[in-house]
Amino acid sequence: MTIREATPNDLDGIWEIFEIVIKSGDTYAFDPNTPKEDLPKLWLAPTMKVFVAEENGQILGTYFIKPNQVGLGAHIANCGYMVHPETRGRGVGKQLFDHSWLIAKEAGYTGMQFNFVVSTNTSAVKLWEKCGFKIIGTIPKGFKHQQLGYVDAYVMFREID
Amino acid sequence: MTIREATPNDLDGIWEIFEIVIKSGDTYAFDPNTPKEDLPKLWLAPTMKVFVAEENGQILGTYFIKPNQVGLGAHIANCGYMVHPETRGRGVGKQLFDHSWLIAKEAGYTGMQFNFVVSTNTSAVKLWEKCGFKIIGTIPKGFKHQQLGYVDAYVMFREID
Repeated sequence: MTIREATPNDLDGIWEIFEIVIKSGDTYAFDPNTPKEDLPKLWLAPTMKVFVAEENGQILGTYFIKPNQVGLGAHIANCGYMVHPETRGRGVGKQLFDHSWLIAKEAGYTGMQFNFVVSTNTSAVKLWEKCGFKIIGTIPKGFKHQQLGYVDAYVMFREID
Repeated sequence: MTIREATPNDLDGIWEIFEIVIKSGDTYAFDPNTPKEDLPKLWLAPTMKVFVAEENGQILGTYFIKPNQVGLGAHIANCGYMVHPETRGRGVGKQLFDHSWLIAKEAGYTGMQFNFVVSTNTSAVKLWEKCGFKIIGTIPKGFKHQQLGYVDAYVMFREID
């Protein structure tokens, strides 16, 4: 498996993952019925650097990294990660994270922040805690879970030293 | 003073406030040297509803309201407020907030969140606490203050009932 910067040719491969991941409506804020034409602005916006994990021509996962705020808040990175459901359990998510951490360091970011980790997505919360992140804030009923109704969302943060 | 929805004709009046407010680099993330041509995407983006406080043809203040997240997080509102420095102390900020709160209720939002309140901006923190907001998170050294260096930024939240 190699992790490399995404190209316009990866749009279909990224969409295949994106579409399945958002469909369940339990992990990401993206509308479960987001149309494919919205993908570029949601996952490949000009402010984002986007990477894909590829194996034998197949996209197994993807992440973006961008400044979490403009200007005077642009030293904190924000990332989003998605892994193809059929590839889960192989540590692809962790490898994407490790890659993004190096990219963040290289780019000079001083911290990384996730703005919207769904509290009931325990595998994500556990992964981020394992990666050194702390819950620094809780948005009460911030996420409209498609099975559980309104649930809390966490803000998670780790300093880059 | 009347508060009304902004029109394209208000761009200059809003810019006059925006330019002065961001110049000090102690309250908003916007780059203190943001060029005027960036104003539409920063304060008048398609996802935002924008209002102005007007008196005798002069714009005294402005705010935007928008969903803080897409899709499954779009029930929480996010707002930004700016008041002309020459108008401070007249309660224009509070009146803009009260207006935004009604607009948020009407639109069916269930909460309002500020993602990036500079911790050293005590007048803003006090105003929001007076308005019923609580600090629900702290981003360590999240803001690059132009006089004080890196300082914390708060996430503040109030439920709309």
